[in-house]
Formats: sequence, C-alpha cells, structure tokens
Amino acid sequence: MGDTDRIRRVAQRVERAARDGNGVVVVVSAMGSTTDRLVQQAHEVSPAPPGRELDMLLTAGERISMSLLAMAIHARGLTARSFTGSQAGIITDAVHGKARILDITPGRITEALGGGHVVIVAGFQGVSRESKDVTTLGRGGSDTTAVALAAALGAPVCEIYTDVDGVYTADPRLVPAAQRLREVSHEEMLELAACGARVLQVRSVEYARNHGVDIHVRSSFSWQDGTWVRKATKTMEHPIISGVAHDTSEGKLVIRRVPDKPGVAAQIFTAFADANINVDMIVQNVGDDGTTDISCTLPRAEGPRALQLLEHVSSEIGAHHVTFDDQIAKVSLVGAGMKTHPGVAAAMFRALSEAGVNIEMISTSTIRISVVVRRADVDAAVTAVHEHFGLGGEDAGLGEVIAR
Amino acid sequence: MGDTDRIRRVAQRVERAARDGNGVVVVVSAMGSTTDRLVQQAHEVSPAPPGRELDMLLTAGERISMSLLAMAIHARGLTARSFTGSQAGIITDAVHGKARILDITPGRITEALGGGHVVIVAGFQGVSRESKDVTTLGRGGSDTTAVALAAALGAPVCEIYTDVDGVYTADPRLVPAAQRLREVSHEEMLELAACGARVLQVRSVEYARNHGVDIHVRSSFSWQDGTWVRKATKTMEHPIISGVAHDTSEGKLVIRRVPDKPGVAAQIFTAFADANINVDMIVQNVGDDGTTDISCTLPRAEGPRALQLLEHVSSEIGAHHVTFDDQIAKVSLVGAGMKTHPGVAAAMFRALSEAGVNIEMISTSTIRISVVVRRADVDAAVTAVHEHFGLGGEDAGLGEVIAR
Repeated sequence: MGDTDRIRRVAQRVERAARDGNGVVVVVSAMGSTTDRLVQQAHEVSPAPPGRELDMLLTAGERISMSLLAMAIHARGLTARSFTGSQAGIITDAVHGKARILDITPGRITEALGGGHVVIVAGFQGVSRESKDVTTLGRGGSDTTAVALAAALGAPVCEIYTDVDGVYTADPRLVPAAQRLREVSHEEMLELAACGARVLQVRSVEYARNHGVDIHVRSSFSWQDGTWVRKATKTMEHPIISGVAHDTSEGKLVIRRVPDKPGVAAQIFTAFADANINVDMIVQNVGDDGTTDISCTLPRAEGPRALQLLEHVSSEIGAHHVTFDDQIAKVSLVGAGMKTHPGVAAAMFRALSEAGVNIEMISTSTIRISVVVRRADVDAAVTAVHEHFGLGGEDAGLGEVIAR
Repeated sequence: MGDTDRIRRVAQRVERAARDGNGVVVVVSAMGSTTDRLVQQAHEVSPAPPGRELDMLLTAGERISMSLLAMAIHARGLTARSFTGSQAGIITDAVHGKARILDITPGRITEALGGGHVVIVAGFQGVSRESKDVTTLGRGGSDTTAVALAAALGAPVCEIYTDVDGVYTADPRLVPAAQRLREVSHEEMLELAACGARVLQVRSVEYARNHGVDIHVRSSFSWQDGTWVRKATKTMEHPIISGVAHDTSEGKLVIRRVPDKPGVAAQIFTAFADANINVDMIVQNVGDDGTTDISCTLPRAEGPRALQLLEHVSSEIGAHHVTFDDQIAKVSLVGAGMKTHPGVAAAMFRALSEAGVNIEMISTSTIRISVVVRRADVDAAVTAVHEHFGLGGEDAGLGEVIAR
C-alpha cells in the first residue's frame, strides 16, 4: 500500500467483498515507505541490528497499515478488527527475518468472523513457538500469510492483489507481445516464481500447492479477473509451454578443481545452508584430472558472504580457487506439457543459438529448463525463446504464461 | 525521545547503569514525531477512529523506539531484549485510550534479566484481561508503566527521565526565583501533579504511593540528582509549603438554579463518569430560593461534550441553565505542613487580593488549597503566592516545590 489514499481505496474494495455476503479476511503489508524508513533508522543506531529486534521494529509497519485499514473500513459503516501475526495465531520457527510458518491457530479470527467483523491480519509476521518472540517471514511473507490463512480457514479462494493484472507468458516490459494467462497449475507457477516471475513468491505458491489453496492473482487497480493458480486438473488446458521467466538477481559462484571424492559437495552446501544462503542452480562437471568444477547460482547480495565462507571450506577440501560472477542472468522455460513432448530443450537451445546467446549453465526439471547466460543477453534470450515457442499475441495457440 | 541520535544517547546512559552492575529495565515512550504522524494518518482515513484500532495504531510508536533502543544498546556491546506491553505482562482493563493497569505478570522480564540482558519495555501500553486486545494507558502512561514495573519487580528506585531537572517550587517560566525540591512526599507530589505540575502524571504518582515506589525525577540531559519522590518519613523535611502549581488546561462548568434536593449531584456526575469525563474541582452553593448552583472544572477539550450531556440531564433535573467558561486557571498551594499550620488559606487569599486577583472558586484538601481565577491573572497569582510564602531563592527557608 502506498499511503492513506491507497488505504481508503482498499477499504472500498473490502467493503464491496463484504457487502456481497462474504466473510472477509484481509492480509496487509506495510505501506511502501514505512519499511524503508524503519530499516534506515535501524542502521542509524546499529551497524548490525540483532534479528530479534529488527523483526520487532519491522512488524510496526503492518501494525500501522492494518489498524489504519480497520479505521477506514469502520468509516464506511462496517466493523473491522485488526490482528497481529501473533494474535492471528501465525506460529513460526525462531529464524528471525526468515521464519517459516509451523502452524496456524486462528481461533480469534474465526471468532471475529462469526461476530460479523471484517478481519484484518498483519502479513509477513508471526510468533515463534518456543520463545514467543515476534518473527518476520522474510520476502513475500505477506503472500504466504494470506495463503496459509486461506488454508487454515478453508477459504474457497485466496486473492492476491498486486500492481500487475496477472501472470504473463513473459515479462511484458521485455516482450510487448506477452499475454496474460487465465490459469496456471501450482507446479508451473512454482517453477515460474522460482525462476524469477516476481508476481508471486515461491513460498506462497509452495504453501498453496501443499494445502490445495486456489490463488487468484489480480490487480489492485481494476475489477477484472487476473490469473488463477489452481491444482492441475484434467479440464485444465495443458499448453506445452506456459511461459518464459528470467531472473537477474543472482550471481554465479564457481569452485574450480575440487578433488572428485565423496562428501565434498555436501561439505560446501552444508556450509551455505548453515549460513542461511539460498543456493539455486547447482551444476557439477567432472574433469579428467581427478578434479571437478562445481558451479551454483545464489542471490547476488550473498556473493561476498559466500566467498568468505568458501575461503575457509575450500582450503579444507583442497579446491583450487573460487570465483563469483555477478553479471549473469537466468532464463527459464516452464510448461507442464513439456514432460510428454521431447525436444523442447533442444528447441530452446537452438533459439538461443540463433539469437547469438551463449549458454553458461543448464539445469532442468520435469516441467522446466533453465539456462544461465550473460546478463547483457537477457532481453535477447527471453525474446528469442518467447517467439520461438509462439507464446506471443499473434500466435497464442501453444500456451500462455509469465512474469511482471 | 526525539530521534535516533536521542536513542543513541539513551543507550549510552543505559550502558552506564548496566555496567555499574545493575539489572536495568528501561520503559520507553514513542519518539516525539511518531505519535503525531500516526494520529494524523488515523484522521486521514476515519473521522472517528474506533478505540481498539487507534490503540493498535499508536502502540506502533513504542514498538519502534524500543526495538531501536535495543539495537543501539546491542551496538555498545551489551545485549538487550525489547518487550511489548503485552509481552511484559501489563494486564489492563478494556477501556481503549484510557486503560488502567489491573495486574503485572513480568515472567518474561525477570527471565531476561536473569539471562543478563538489558530489558526494554514499551510504555503506555498493555493488553486487556478479557479480550486480549492491545490497550493504551492514556496520558502519562509511560510513567505509570515504569512505576508499575518497578513495584512488580521490587526495584529500589524508578528513575523518570524528563526534559526538566526536577520538581520546582513553581513553574520557573512564570517564577524565575523558583527552586528545585530535593525531595517531596508522594502525597504532596500527588497534589502538585493533580494541580497542574506536568513533570509527573497523577496516575504514576498514585501508583507509586500505593505500592511504596521511590521515584527519582531527573533530567535526560545531565547526570546530577533531580527530585526524589518518597514515602513521607519523620526524617523528611516538612516545609509548611512545598510549592505553587497552576493549571490552565481546564474550563469551568456552571449549572445554575438546580432544585436543591437529594440525588441531583449524583445524577449529574454519574452522567460525566459514564462518559469518561474527568471532573476535577466540584463546588456547590445553596441559594435562598430552594435552588442551588453547582460548579465544576474539567478538561477544556471536554467542554462541548459535557454541555451536550447536560442538555439532556438538566431538563430532567430542572436546572435553569448551564454555562461553560474556558477562560479560567487554577492556582494551588501544596504543603504537607499546612495541616498543622492554621491560617495558610487566609494568607493565600490575602496575597491574591493584594495582587488584585479575583477568586471564583475555592476547594481545599488537608495539604492543598486551590482557587480558580481568570486565566489572564494566572502569572500574577502564581508570582504573588510564591513570593508571599517565601519560596524563592533569596528566602528559601520555608520550603521548596513544583511544576515545570
């Protein structure tokens, strides 16, 4: 949300939903400027704010937007009750800044709904099971809160309002011919989100898939339908390709000439996991001198920390040297239909080759092919692949999918 | 607190107290500008924000300052844990905006102290016993939180930091010769606070008296001693007069020619109590025609609401008419010694008369005499009384007391 005008607009939308006779639970984020200001203040008083206190601070953001929204709804003649993550029963683990939801005990919410109130819940936050401390869920936490509550309450749908009107076959800023998808399966959405489609966060889609929650991604600025993310069914269209996603937020770490023996990869990636560094693609090639090169992608911001960690580990395991390249991009092709259609990967590589784009890494799943290319090539790569598979407006027979 | 610079200064002070080997519990208010901004936002979205949501909103203020302070303390090499009112076990009734503390269950605080942490608690807020909703204590709530916690934890002293360096014999802005009191009894402080000395709020002093908590009122800007507020003891100096307080925040309500029969006053003041309007002085004079005039003082801001309430009640009880005068001031003389020294009231009235100040209402307790005068006369009245009783710097034998 942007400011109090925006809050009043949200209240109007909530009123419409509530007047239709629906029990409405609204999950809010902090207002745009609030979080930035709080983070800045934290850095003014501390070079390294402790996680517990940073979470306590940041959760003030949703507290402000949720109570203001309750007031704005009240001003429209309805009653509303706002609840913090803790009050709403969002029970998490104790990893500050990146907590995971362990359980939802929404007793106060069902009670308030039963009393005819609109319920407003602070997204992004919870309370740790053991220490009863306030936690934040990290990136995309509000979406996850919404999906988790929808599951716990047995809601028929979880609507996620965003500043775009759905999920597209490619980022429309890169590919003007990109089309909005009417529906997409949880699995495809998960791959798209994991590959850079920022419209939904991976964790929220994962939660929705695991708990069978339908998500309707739609625009805050219009009343028209957006994209439905649903359980894959027989009646759902299964285009071979749903869309092309890209991600320029990662860097590539290469560990050269690691002795090719058991336990080496485990040692490296355990160190990353312990440091809470999320590694994405991992590729290993065995060389002919008894050593191997291991490459992986991870958030660009984590690069320096990852290098530092590896300095210690790589001398232990006897790696030759480690480099971090922050000028890469990942381009991914996603489609549930590709598992039954051979040759999709070959066609994708051909399209890239014809566009003069070099491939640096390849990683695949049953419904996804991802490649790492130079960051400067990302526009050309996405456009070439999108066009090659006929995902654009003129030739939208094969499918429809991704990315804002 | 003013801003993050101020927070860093407070952290420095806390560190000094903690390094002395003390277990330290710090109660914080919201930063100066925060509350104003939140109130403004509330009014942008709602003409009459519901109390529950306004409390939810305003408590974001202390949340921000307490977590920032914890970070700033952490940055100085100590560990700190911040707790909301609810987490600190501040249990209140459910009167939003004016909640009263019912109980303190400081389990998490003693645990954190035992773990060697500096504890920071959000002042001004609590959680209601029945509904488990977030509440605010209203005006001076942070002082009350501090005193209540000091009592619950058996702390030897509750230090209250403010922008003045203690309690004075009169407001130094009005009376330059006013002197700082070294110590004052709870009872005197209570009268002084009730009569307009804004350095401490009535509720916090009342709580301190009821629970035997020593308060040390001192400046945030220096290390020197301020004023100690203690249980009256034999060894304490007992000046006849402690100080002169004044209050320009009230207005005078006069209900004329009420039938002089039982139950009338009860009916009027029950209506005020039900509406949560705090009435201060009440004076009743019986006339010679079987009717009576009832006057009372109450917060100026409540005037319109009080008049509205009385419109209904006064026709029921047959009152002639009701007026509200917002151009009054209250001047009070406080001193534990006056109960054993007759003639203090007469001397005060004489001083006012000699200064040409007319008295409109009089009300007394065993250790206080209050008069209502024209608001334009308040400076002259305070100066005349302060001088008459020799409370100034040149002649400070009789006593020492009040007001910032």
